[in-house]
Amino acid sequence: MSTNQNDELAQERLIDLAAEFYDQFAQGDIPHMDIPTRTKSNIVFDEESKVWVYGDRKSTRSANSVRGARKLLKAAYAIEFLVNQLEENRSSTLRELYYLSESWDNEEAQFNDQSESNQLIEDLEIVSHVTREDFHMRPEESGAKVMGPLHIREQTRRGDRDIHCQEDVGQGGYQIPNNPDTIEFLGNDAEFVLCVETGGMRDRLVENGFDTEHDALVVHLGGQPARATRRLTKRLHDELGLPVVVFTDGDPWSYRIYGSVAYGSIKSAHLSEYLATPEAKFIGIQPQDIVDYDLPTDPLSDSDVNALESELEDPRFMTDYWEEQIQLQLDINKKAEQQSLAARGLDFVTDTYLPERLDEMGVL
Amino acid sequence: MSTNQNDELAQERLIDLAAEFYDQFAQGDIPHMDIPTRTKSNIVFDEESKVWVYGDRKSTRSANSVRGARKLLKAAYAIEFLVNQLEENRSSTLRELYYLSESWDNEEAQFNDQSESNQLIEDLEIVSHVTREDFHMRPEESGAKVMGPLHIREQTRRGDRDIHCQEDVGQGGYQIPNNPDTIEFLGNDAEFVLCVETGGMRDRLVENGFDTEHDALVVHLGGQPARATRRLTKRLHDELGLPVVVFTDGDPWSYRIYGSVAYGSIKSAHLSEYLATPEAKFIGIQPQDIVDYDLPTDPLSDSDVNALESELEDPRFMTDYWEEQIQLQLDINKKAEQQSLAARGLDFVTDTYLPERLDEMGVL
Repeated sequence: MSTNQNDELAQERLIDLAAEFYDQFAQGDIPHMDIPTRTKSNIVFDEESKVWVYGDRKSTRSANSVRGARKLLKAAYAIEFLVNQLEENRSSTLRELYYLSESWDNEEAQFNDQSESNQLIEDLEIVSHVTREDFHMRPEESGAKVMGPLHIREQTRRGDRDIHCQEDVGQGGYQIPNNPDTIEFLGNDAEFVLCVETGGMRDRLVENGFDTEHDALVVHLGGQPARATRRLTKRLHDELGLPVVVFTDGDPWSYRIYGSVAYGSIKSAHLSEYLATPEAKFIGIQPQDIVDYDLPTDPLSDSDVNALESELEDPRFMTDYWEEQIQLQLDINKKAEQQSLAARGLDFVTDTYLPERLDEMGVL
Repeated sequence: MSTNQNDELAQERLIDLAAEFYDQFAQGDIPHMDIPTRTKSNIVFDEESKVWVYGDRKSTRSANSVRGARKLLKAAYAIEFLVNQLEENRSSTLRELYYLSESWDNEEAQFNDQSESNQLIEDLEIVSHVTREDFHMRPEESGAKVMGPLHIREQTRRGDRDIHCQEDVGQGGYQIPNNPDTIEFLGNDAEFVLCVETGGMRDRLVENGFDTEHDALVVHLGGQPARATRRLTKRLHDELGLPVVVFTDGDPWSYRIYGSVAYGSIKSAHLSEYLATPEAKFIGIQPQDIVDYDLPTDPLSDSDVNALESELEDPRFMTDYWEEQIQLQLDINKKAEQQSLAARGLDFVTDTYLPERLDEMGVL
């Protein structure tokens, strides 16, 4: 679907929401909006799409109290703003929306703080089945960067740009735009997508020419990945049929980074189908690697242990693989960073570790 | 100077350092290395270069104790590694260096933690007068991105890349490489450089076409700017003669971001001549703007007040301008974010605020 069609659909859905309030008024009903309950206990695994989505439990925002009525008033103002923004083909950040509300003539409609406006946008995403990006809400966080044999066309405000993500970019790679749905894939010689947590490791792979040698698309995650990075990763998988592997440090926080690529988060389960790549596989650093490759390590801290134990109870990590690895890590009481592979020399990661792991996983 | 010449110079200087130890041994002296004391009390303003540099006070690292001898041994190993790295035209991160030391055959030469290896590299930078980038040590942090009428040639490991920072890049702009000295400026139609703190504001300026309308090079700082970003900014000023203005939030932490662009930091005063742009001017958000434009604000926290008071005692902020602005901020007890300008509408920043400020400052 082109971005223009997305814009029209988003406008339509938003106007439908407002129309619903109108109809409720007309029928003498108290206006209200039903929203799935967004808690750990209300996420369920959707067998068809292989992602975690919200279950059947609902909360209701109703105008039957002053507080509730104010919430719906703010929703109506926000809908008006978003529809105009789409009409004018503009965009804005969540932060700007919060400040913009100060200019709304009805003081009751102004947001008290940014968490309130952020939540409203999430509510609107869920109820309208349209993503924030299609409301033209830009994130504060930038997407990361891509290096590899991929030829794209990006639709920008200044016209289309054809960019080859090896030949037309500097050492820093191609910067993912805020809305990666403006990207069209023109062609590629890629065998797989390798998402990498740290900038240091990303630069190591690029310096060692891993992307050219193995026809890999190296996607830098930069810690917890931005929505734009996760969306592009999903599109590379779904539309180009490329396997996706995730390469992070070997600690519980990094497993969550993998989790956010593969499964999405509880807070944004309504976006799982848009952002999550459930087929993404974890390449390492696995606790098993710490043992097998005798890597330099640090001992687990108390908060590491707590985080590992909480992952053991997280439905998204309840697989034989993760239970085994996490249990092993608790037993050896060690963690290792991806750059610790340098203890075996600067080429060990590209000459030995990654090829061995990719072979084991059936990717290479 | 081309990057190859830089490499040779770096190698030479490093070998000179090692030779000095050798000479000291040969003369029957205890090997030692003199390093400027790196404290607030030992930075002085250099009138000629207009930056803060280290004063005359020195500390000595000497082999007259086991601890000191071990430090010099580590220095000798690190020098050998760096010389080989330059020889082979490779590069590595500070983190990799720390892990690599585990593979050094002399166990005494291994680093205890990364702060030790980081400090050693800083020592070597200071003593050799060569920057870390010229040792081919890459930062973990990525440089930010540029959008504007600038045509560059970047020397990459895959060959040269000619890139126009508006016409050949996506909405995300041109990603600054780790070592911006690999960039050659081919041409530009720019009037000035606008460094911007937040991603949200950077995207606002690009969406509103501020770079095309005012021939501005919009450089995203992304919080505390990476060395690569500061280096490129300095080169844009020095080599292209472009005025540099810095646009941040209006709080003491953001004034430090301005300070790091303009003056450098105490910890890296040896790099001021390489990284700092003393002619860079602060555009805002000024405390005066909070009053003049009646911006939405938050009250100062205790730590904000402390930071402002500490800035009043910082030699780098001892100017009439900063004393007046900081005093005003303490009086009104308010701070404002750059995106708070959105309270006056999404175009206020590009149609009104920036043109007015740039005119006042004599840039436009």
